[in-house]
Amino acid sequence: MATGSAQLPELHPVAGVRLAHASAGIRKAGRRDLALLALVEGSSVAAVFTTNAFCAAPVIVAREHLQAHSPRALLINTGSANAGTGAAGLEAARRSCQALAQTLGVAAEEVLPFSTGVIGEQLAVARIEAALPGLVSGLDENGWAGAAEAILTTDTRAKGATARVEVNGRDIAVTGISKGAGMIRPDMATMLAFVATDAPVSQAHLQALLSEVTQRSFNRISVDGDTSTNDACVLVATGAAGGDALTPGGPGWDAFTAAVETVCVSLAQAIVRDGEGATKFITLDVTGAASEAEARGVAEAVAHSPLVKTAFYAGDPNWGRILAAVGRAGIADLDITGVDISLGEVALVRGGEPAPGYTETAGQAVMAEEDITVRIHMGRGEHATQIWTCDLGHDYVRINAEYRT
Amino acid sequence: MATGSAQLPELHPVAGVRLAHASAGIRKAGRRDLALLALVEGSSVAAVFTTNAFCAAPVIVAREHLQAHSPRALLINTGSANAGTGAAGLEAARRSCQALAQTLGVAAEEVLPFSTGVIGEQLAVARIEAALPGLVSGLDENGWAGAAEAILTTDTRAKGATARVEVNGRDIAVTGISKGAGMIRPDMATMLAFVATDAPVSQAHLQALLSEVTQRSFNRISVDGDTSTNDACVLVATGAAGGDALTPGGPGWDAFTAAVETVCVSLAQAIVRDGEGATKFITLDVTGAASEAEARGVAEAVAHSPLVKTAFYAGDPNWGRILAAVGRAGIADLDITGVDISLGEVALVRGGEPAPGYTETAGQAVMAEEDITVRIHMGRGEHATQIWTCDLGHDYVRINAEYRT
Repeated sequence: MATGSAQLPELHPVAGVRLAHASAGIRKAGRRDLALLALVEGSSVAAVFTTNAFCAAPVIVAREHLQAHSPRALLINTGSANAGTGAAGLEAARRSCQALAQTLGVAAEEVLPFSTGVIGEQLAVARIEAALPGLVSGLDENGWAGAAEAILTTDTRAKGATARVEVNGRDIAVTGISKGAGMIRPDMATMLAFVATDAPVSQAHLQALLSEVTQRSFNRISVDGDTSTNDACVLVATGAAGGDALTPGGPGWDAFTAAVETVCVSLAQAIVRDGEGATKFITLDVTGAASEAEARGVAEAVAHSPLVKTAFYAGDPNWGRILAAVGRAGIADLDITGVDISLGEVALVRGGEPAPGYTETAGQAVMAEEDITVRIHMGRGEHATQIWTCDLGHDYVRINAEYRT
Repeated sequence: MATGSAQLPELHPVAGVRLAHASAGIRKAGRRDLALLALVEGSSVAAVFTTNAFCAAPVIVAREHLQAHSPRALLINTGSANAGTGAAGLEAARRSCQALAQTLGVAAEEVLPFSTGVIGEQLAVARIEAALPGLVSGLDENGWAGAAEAILTTDTRAKGATARVEVNGRDIAVTGISKGAGMIRPDMATMLAFVATDAPVSQAHLQALLSEVTQRSFNRISVDGDTSTNDACVLVATGAAGGDALTPGGPGWDAFTAAVETVCVSLAQAIVRDGEGATKFITLDVTGAASEAEARGVAEAVAHSPLVKTAFYAGDPNWGRILAAVGRAGIADLDITGVDISLGEVALVRGGEPAPGYTETAGQAVMAEEDITVRIHMGRGEHATQIWTCDLGHDYVRINAEYRT
């Protein structure tokens, strides 16, 4: 299951970025499982990685390589996460970088590796090596859709977003792809996202921008509250559009960053819409909190509650479960009689009790929709946050119980 | 689904405690939905309640009454949680106490009310009032099993535990009943537990004992990580066995408290065994942590991970998901290469990697059992904890999606 449109939009090419994909047979034969993004020399590359202390070999290698060099290629495999694989896993990640570097004629440290798939199995690096010549020969500026397919695991659909914006008289493209459906919570998850623009931006400004935008996009989604070993989000600026480098506060910066945020929010929401077993896309809007951390704590408690999520699956406006989740969000001095909840435009709870005039029929009408906004007003202050999540249904259990079988 | 034996053991009567149950038609006709425990005058009563800031009307009233008086009766209804019901809900809880007090010839403040069921619906207090005369006339020292049935909601079976112990030459009984199947996590949950003994213990010592024992029993269970508005655990000491009051450090204290702990642990584990949709009973043993809080954080991260729980449901020894849950437990300086995990007697992970000689066949053999122990050694210190949880299967979704329909 999934919610919203399954159609991948037409993705604008980004000058300076060529893409390719291949079926290397890493875990299953005949499945697209390898993707490559080749970047023109001089591109700036920013990245954020998982905060999970159990991080995968490719994350360790990608972090190392990023510190030393400006990347020329991103190599992504599915089938194996190359996590929990120890020294052999690190060696495998390095070997795949070396092999690709040789084929492309760049340094091994100019390749960033990314993996997603089953944890704890050694990476079939020989199969990757065998697939590289074919992969490289397929590089194409119009390869975004194929790469979007090749990075999927339990996803049911490819995810891409794209924007064009005029910045300082030049036509700038921002295009990205993402993957992820389970093991998703705020602060990265089993997700990968690759976003590129042909705007000229320095590495330092690009990294600051990515960190900021991630807080408002990928760090606001939750499918099941789990985080992963392999999460990564990469933002590339090739500069191929020409012109002066964009800088914070300078001309065109706001228009440019708005385009990047639009693309990242769209990619993040696409992950929730394709959440494992999801039938509803839920926006949690927490307002009136005493601090931003408090707002976030409330939003996460609700987003991670299996009872709330199964009620949404059932189309049941069970406000008691929402209120109980708010009540256990760890706010010591919470007065529940100050809390209001609405479901879409329907007032559900006013002052910790059913709102006057509320009817189950009105609540159920909103619950029957595919996109639902839950507004929780805490009545304690001026802080707010927003999280996107999905419901918990039978297919989540089925997918995760059967994943390795 | 549920794990372990469905048979209620024969519950020893406790001198000074009489029980009864009735079908008051609170939410559904013909269903046992009312239970009563009448306590002999002079009984000591200790209680712990939910930590959820959104707490039910009966919790508020029971706390009030406990402060002022020594209780003579515990009145428990299912069908309605009487939570999120505002001033009318408080009034309903008080009215049910008054009505019972009148029937019993005690003060209203000597009655403690408990409710469990659907949140946000007003309590059908008139139906309770109508059922009281019949309820009171059925009071019996041998009423434990009937009361155990009457307090159930989504539970599939009655839960009781009992112990006899010789203390200072007298034969002491400790008997308890509990309910709870979903909305369960450490720190109370949608659970109720009532334990009584005929040992003589002062209220102050009984409260201290209950707080301590709760930490090692009811606060160590997790079904779905949610907490509730109505949780309560009550420990009664009638003193009817006679003899000098038992005191900490005094003769017989250790034997007595061990019996109370045995009963509470058994009742707590019974809740997990009957966890909604549960097919496995899982003991999480975390050792080698740098602090007890750290051990608990790790155990909770694993116990609450939907990915871990669906893997157990599938019988899949997916150690990667366990390790990923350990990795996101919020330990800033965690070195995952110091972590060992075993499943029963099978070494699964050694130093953050698959243990030498580990085979899927060996792991699957343990996973096929109904009772599974997962040992996680952090390699960071001397602190440990233990939590009991269950798997997450299709029936959890079915039960919680259908609860109100």
